[in-house]
Amino acid sequence: MRICAATEADREAIWNIFHDVVASGDTYAFDPGISRRDALAYWFRPDTHTYVAKLNCFKQSSSEQAERVVGTYILRPNQFGGGSHVANAAFMVAPDAQGQGIGRAMGEHCLSEARRLGFRAMQFNFVVSTNRSAVRLWQNLGFKIVGTSPDAFRHPEKGYVDVYVMFQSLL
Amino acid sequence: MRICAATEADREAIWNIFHDVVASGDTYAFDPGISRRDALAYWFRPDTHTYVAKLNCFKQSSSEQAERVVGTYILRPNQFGGGSHVANAAFMVAPDAQGQGIGRAMGEHCLSEARRLGFRAMQFNFVVSTNRSAVRLWQNLGFKIVGTSPDAFRHPEKGYVDVYVMFQSLL
Repeated sequence: MRICAATEADREAIWNIFHDVVASGDTYAFDPGISRRDALAYWFRPDTHTYVAKLNCFKQSSSEQAERVVGTYILRPNQFGGGSHVANAAFMVAPDAQGQGIGRAMGEHCLSEARRLGFRAMQFNFVVSTNRSAVRLWQNLGFKIVGTSPDAFRHPEKGYVDVYVMFQSLL
Repeated sequence: MRICAATEADREAIWNIFHDVVASGDTYAFDPGISRRDALAYWFRPDTHTYVAKLNCFKQSSSEQAERVVGTYILRPNQFGGGSHVANAAFMVAPDAQGQGIGRAMGEHCLSEARRLGFRAMQFNFVVSTNRSAVRLWQNLGFKIVGTSPDAFRHPEKGYVDVYVMFQSLL
């Protein structure tokens, strides 16, 4: 797997992942019907570093190797002014590529990038409590739950569920 | 005092308050040098309800009464999609009009508006812990501290200080 800064050429693959992840409506507080344009504007906001995770794979009709974008993440200041030393990040893995450690690899890459860029901490503002694999992954990578908003997410099957703020110092 | 929806005619007064409040850099995570254009775009975002608090006052050179904008607040969904039932709000009072209960009056008005608009809860994402009067006011109005991000705000005099997430159900 290779994780690198996203380029124009990755936009279509990112939109496909974004659309698939958001359509389920069970992990992210985006409108599931968000347009391609709005989604990419958010993911490539001027203050945002955008990355992709690529896997080598064989093209179906030949033995030629190709790379496939299987995940993407963004890293940016969580706030402006006096809050800009804390990073925020968001991660998405293609639904058919989940369970292969791509989220973990991107998480580790992201923490390293955040340190390189001089951020002093990282915060996730909106981790849906029923997204157990994400909560567990972030805890494994050093994040702590520092806040709980009761019933702050309407899960499509589970109804109103809690949302966590997760945080870790990078010092 | 009168609290009502902001109009085009209030933009100059709102910008003056916004600028004065943000310039101090000790309560809000905005760039203290934010432009008028960016500030008003944020305060009048399409998904945002914008209000002003007006006080009757006498014009200096006559006995004619006039209204002065002494405070402003915004109310909007804190998140999209599955998080849109929780409201977010932000409040600003003109520095020379503080300590007169304008913040409290706007807070009560805001909670009532949020209920009227059908929000199920309200969350403040970024209450600087050293802003004691704000923390106390929100607690008096029913908010609880549900999260603490350590050292997440760089106060211009006090250095790195904690930031609270404050929340209350409206049901």
